[in-house]
Formats: sequence, C-alpha cells, structure tokens
Amino acid sequence: MNLSIIIIGDEILLGGVTDTNSGLIARKFTADGWNVRRIRTVSDKADDIDAAIRESLAESELVITTGGLGPTRDDITKPVLARIFGGRLTENAAVLENVNRIFDERGLELNELTRTQALVPDSCRVIQNRYGTAPLMWFEKEGRVLIAMPGVPFETRGMLDEVASEVYQRFGHGGRAAHREFTVCGICESALAERLSAFEDSLPANYKLAYLPNPGEIVMRLDADFSSCSDESSRFDEYASHFEEAVGEYLVGRGKLTPAELVLAKLRRHGYRIATAESCTGGNIAHLITSVAGCSDVMLGGVVSYCNEVKMKVLGVSGDTLARYGAVSEGTVRQMAEGVRRVMGADCAVATSGIAGPGGAVPGKPVGTVWIAAATPGDVKAECCHFRGDRQSVIDRASARALAMLADML
Amino acid sequence: MNLSIIIIGDEILLGGVTDTNSGLIARKFTADGWNVRRIRTVSDKADDIDAAIRESLAESELVITTGGLGPTRDDITKPVLARIFGGRLTENAAVLENVNRIFDERGLELNELTRTQALVPDSCRVIQNRYGTAPLMWFEKEGRVLIAMPGVPFETRGMLDEVASEVYQRFGHGGRAAHREFTVCGICESALAERLSAFEDSLPANYKLAYLPNPGEIVMRLDADFSSCSDESSRFDEYASHFEEAVGEYLVGRGKLTPAELVLAKLRRHGYRIATAESCTGGNIAHLITSVAGCSDVMLGGVVSYCNEVKMKVLGVSGDTLARYGAVSEGTVRQMAEGVRRVMGADCAVATSGIAGPGGAVPGKPVGTVWIAAATPGDVKAECCHFRGDRQSVIDRASARALAMLADML
Repeated sequence: MNLSIIIIGDEILLGGVTDTNSGLIARKFTADGWNVRRIRTVSDKADDIDAAIRESLAESELVITTGGLGPTRDDITKPVLARIFGGRLTENAAVLENVNRIFDERGLELNELTRTQALVPDSCRVIQNRYGTAPLMWFEKEGRVLIAMPGVPFETRGMLDEVASEVYQRFGHGGRAAHREFTVCGICESALAERLSAFEDSLPANYKLAYLPNPGEIVMRLDADFSSCSDESSRFDEYASHFEEAVGEYLVGRGKLTPAELVLAKLRRHGYRIATAESCTGGNIAHLITSVAGCSDVMLGGVVSYCNEVKMKVLGVSGDTLARYGAVSEGTVRQMAEGVRRVMGADCAVATSGIAGPGGAVPGKPVGTVWIAAATPGDVKAECCHFRGDRQSVIDRASARALAMLADML
Repeated sequence: MNLSIIIIGDEILLGGVTDTNSGLIARKFTADGWNVRRIRTVSDKADDIDAAIRESLAESELVITTGGLGPTRDDITKPVLARIFGGRLTENAAVLENVNRIFDERGLELNELTRTQALVPDSCRVIQNRYGTAPLMWFEKEGRVLIAMPGVPFETRGMLDEVASEVYQRFGHGGRAAHREFTVCGICESALAERLSAFEDSLPANYKLAYLPNPGEIVMRLDADFSSCSDESSRFDEYASHFEEAVGEYLVGRGKLTPAELVLAKLRRHGYRIATAESCTGGNIAHLITSVAGCSDVMLGGVVSYCNEVKMKVLGVSGDTLARYGAVSEGTVRQMAEGVRRVMGADCAVATSGIAGPGGAVPGKPVGTVWIAAATPGDVKAECCHFRGDRQSVIDRASARALAMLADML
C-alpha cells in the first residue's frame, strides 16, 4: 500500500532546519511493507499545503504530514484541513487539558495563542500528543487517511509507533511485501555491483535490490512485492541467502547496523570494554558510540588529543616519535591506542590522527590522510587511509573506518 | 525567481539516508533572493523522476536535481533527461578523462559500469565534477534551466558555488531581492554604527542594513530590494564586500554562526584555548568544535569521562563528591571543568554530566537532567538544566547550551 509524506514548514524549505521526520516515518512504514510514493516539502502557505495534500491523497491510501501546527502556525494548516475534510474548528476539551497539564509541568502561563492549540476541525479524531502541546489529527475521506503530526522531531519519534499501530488496525500491514537489509563493508559501490550482477540478473521482476551507500559501509536492501503473484515468501529467504553468498566476506551483518552498533555488539559478546583516542576525528567516534543507548556497560570514555601536548601528557605518546615521524604517523596512533587503553583501563581501543582539511596538508601527507589504530587485548593494528571529500566527510569516513577496523579484529 | 529541488534516490525515500543536499542548495539560493517553491523526494523509478521534473519545470525557472546518477543509477535518470530535453546518450571525452583521472588517483581499475558515467545526453552542457566521477549536467528548454547534480553530499557541497555562479550569469541573482547575514563580535552596537556610518551613507535607497544584537554578538543583515531597478547581482556582492572591509577585524563570520563557531571566534579574540570534559554528551561538544575548520589554534582537546573511574583518575573528580552527590551534580561538573582545564593546560573549559536516557533516571533526577559547567580564567559557572526529548535531543540541547554558556561568559 502507498504512503505519501508531506513536510510542512518554511524553516525546512529555506534550509534552516534539516528534516529528519520523513526518514523516520519512511523507515517505520517501509519496514512493514508499505511503499513510500513521495515526500513533498512545502512552505507554510495555505495554497501550497492544500495542493500537496490533494496530490498525495490522489496517489496514496495513507498521507502523513508533519509540521505546520503549533501556536504560530495553527491559523494556516488547520483551516486547510477543514477545507479538504470538512468540519469547523472547535475547542477540544481533551487537547486543552493536555496543553494545560504540560504548561503546569513547565510552570508556564497559558496564553491565548497557546489556547488555540485546542482548536481542531470537528471532522478529525484526535490522537493525544504525549510529548508536546500540538494535537495529532486523524482525518478520513473516501477510504483515504491523513494523519497530521507535529513537526518537533522528538514528538514525532515518540508518537510514531502509536500512530503506526492505529494505521495497521485500519489498513492491516502494508500487505504482501518483504524486505531485508544487509550491511556491507570494505568494497566500493561499483565493484559490489559487478560482483552482484549475476545475482541481480537472477532476480524475478517483483524483486528489487537497492544500494544505500554510507561512509565506510554500504547498506543493501532486498525488496520483494508479492501483491501481484501467488505467495512466494518462502522463495524470499532463498534469494536472501543467494545474496549473502554473492557478497561473501564483505557482508558484516544482516540489518542496517551502524559501525558503532556493530562494535558494541561484538565487545559485549567478548565482555570487553572500550576507550577512544581521537585527534582528527575530534570526539566523533566517542559521540557515535555514546549515541547508542545502553552503551555504558562497554564504553569507558575517551581522550580527544587535538594538540601534541595532550598526546604526550595525557596519552603518553613519546615526544621522539612525534618529532621524528609527526603526529600523523603509525607510531603515534599505535601509542595513542595503547595509551588510552592503559589510562582508562580498557580492553580495546581505537585511535585516529590525520589531516581533515581544508588546511594542514604537508608534503607526502595530503588532506584526507588519516592513520588509524585499533587495539584488542591480543593485538594492535594500524593502517594509513586516504579519504576523499571535505572536512566533514573525512571525519565521518575515518570514524566509520576506525570502528569497522576494530569490528573486524573482534 | 523560483527554484524547485528534486532529491532522487530510494535510499532517501526509504529513510536509509538523511537528505542534506536540499537544505544546502536552499540556503545558498534563498540567501541570494531566490524563492524555493518546493522540494520533491522521489524514487529511482523513471516515471517518478519524469513526473517530478515536469511538475518542477512548470512552476520554477530553475530546477536542481541531486542523485539518481552514478554507476548503478545512470541507466535510469539520464534517459529520462534525454526524453524531456531531447538528445541521445553520447560518450563525453572530458567526462571520461575525469573518470580515468580519479580512478588512477585511487589506483582502481576502470570497469565497464564506471565507464558509463561518461555517457551524457548530447543536449546538455557538462559541468565537470571536481569531487567525483558523476558529471553535472546543465539542460535548458523554453527559458527554464535544469541542473543535474550528484547525490554524494560532499560533491554537491564542493560544486555548489560554481553552479550558483553559472546560474547567476544566466539569470542574475534571484531578481526581486538579496540578503546576506554577518556575525560581528567584540564591539558594541553604537561603536559599530559609528564605524559603519560612511558605508551606510554610501548605500542606495533600495539597500537596508539591519542590526540584530544578541548577547555577546551582533548579527548584521544587508538587504537589497531590486524590484524597482535594473542591474542587481554584481552590485550586491560589491556592497557586501564594502561592508566586510568597513567592519574589519570585528567580523567573525558570514551568516549566523553556530554556537561552536561563536565560541571559537571569542576564544581567539582573547587568545584563550579550550578543553572539554564530557559525560552525557559523550564527545559531541568536542566534535562540534573540531568540525569547524582551523580550530586547532584554540582547541587543545577533551576527555570523555563516561564512567566514574575516568572522572576520578583522569580528571581528578573527588570520590567523595561522586559518592555523596552523584555523577550528575554541581560539584562533579565543576571539578570536571577545572580538572580538564588543569590536565590539558587550557584557559577555558566546558563540562557536562547528565541523564540522556532512555534509562538511568534516579529519584529527583529524571531523564533530561543535565548539569553543565563553563570555566574561564576568572570564573566557573554551573547550572542544572532539564531538557525534554529523547536521547539524541538531550545530547544536542546539552551540547548547544554548554557552548552558549561559555560564549556568554567571554
């Protein structure tokens, strides 16, 4: 079944804020077999919102909008919804109570503007927002459903499962579809495509293989649509294992594991604990690890040794190594990894030192040169990488590679 | 003038990858007075791409697409472009040379799949991609322009200015209006006004200079309204650079600075150097600082003290404080900030300790409770914040707040 997503808000259209809601919603529903037809990002203008909603209702059984609500916006989006689905704006007691409760919690005075949040078209069913004041609204017309969700990302994240389960009660799951994701590392997209060409040729027309490249990994997605043919779901596992054989040693896991999740899973299996020593990645590796909820049983901490004094004083890198080979060298990253493991009492460690750019290049070490070390109780490995791209790309790729290196050693 | 953006790619539509290209393009062109009509995200299916392009050409003078190119995609997008703009796929010598060069640099073998990147519709003008193999293509039809850009974010980032300047040669700046923001520090509003009086007198009637003072910074906004006069583009850049000369050393950046950029600018002005001590933000603050190019003259490093042992052993937080008040306490963050400043020999420091969730709440300290400390040579401040939202929101908000606290103290 088809889902269309509408992101409402000038702040997104002007590039001031990056939309993460559409991806969140898309991941949730595609995982359950829905087909995302299109994502539309429109301004806070009534006509643009109106047009996007009508186009979406024409192509999809389910339309989800985010944003365009809230005290300063309600006057725009809600009348459009009332125009399309009928009904007049009426104060909803349950919503008003929710708004009052939240304002009490935050010790705020309820002003008239905020009170307008309780005004909803009487043609909709309200789903109470447990994370904020803007109500979620369920509209239905000619067998098509539109759900208006708030724009604040954590409110959307928080309410999504509840919204999805109500959708499934109404429509059932997306229908006869299956998909599986795989995480692939250590091979570039075109080489992988060549490796998989025979497998892709073998796929029936109702199968689709998608390449989702991230820095340091490629997530592969195998999709099958059974709606038009007799039940082949058993064959799906067959094709999935054919795929795994074809990818061979480059397959690092089923599902979309981030490198940090992969490392944490392997460390936990061994009962190891990790520390990080970062120069050019500047704390990003520690950030990636600590972004995973529940990492504290495995993650001890890290040192960002951005200048050489810190490399020496805190991590015990020898001044002689720094003087003779420089900060971007095998000796330095090995000593950084061993140093942070010692200082923090960790079993495993990763270390990076490189030139993220745009400045800092030296003869023989262009921008993108990064030395990476990974240490386990039994072993320390180091490698010199040359990453392309700007500062952010080099940081992202070096971080992903460092985690992948350690994952490979575990 | 109107701009429509099309993001092509299953990986975006399925939520596997977050689109940052549209925001980048939107920010660039809105800053120069263009009106972004709509952003469309579509799959790699030819019909969807075709429809999105035709809708966009109907509403906007300029259409920019990203993605849908590259070795595994070319077979879909380029034929659609040839269908709409005419021409047949022909091997482009300059593109092939570019592809060969890049593959040589990376020591890779050119395979047939990659060679197809050199095939472009002969109806387009190629803009050479200096950051990757997928060529940029400029199409024109009935006074409307479509530019196909690659999907890889750093390639789009790298090529955007070149693309924009070609667009401005073709259309002039956005036409109706242009505006640019600047961040100024270290001078009070009245002194700045005095300094700028000659420049302001030199501005034509259709130009406006606005002072937007925030604590610790003044955001300046130069606006020009071209609706009533002819030549637009070139003059605006002229006046913008006159402005920059007039502000001189107090100009800390174009646009509105991020908290990290602002802190770095102020530290540099004082000749101070900074270190970070992070528990719940897990390295994110160090990452935000080190994401700013050229930070190494100010950023010494940081410690991610995720467990208490590291807080004590590396930062010298007293076990008594941890035992009596816990890790999430004023005493702990103050000692973390002072500790990292001492260990790294820094002048200033920020420290965080809190409960990012979803687990870890204790009586009196719900998820979202974060103690933050900021230290300057003369002063150490600490405050307890309660952030709403999930783990990522708490980490983001605590990081931004810590940097803002230090910026206010400088």
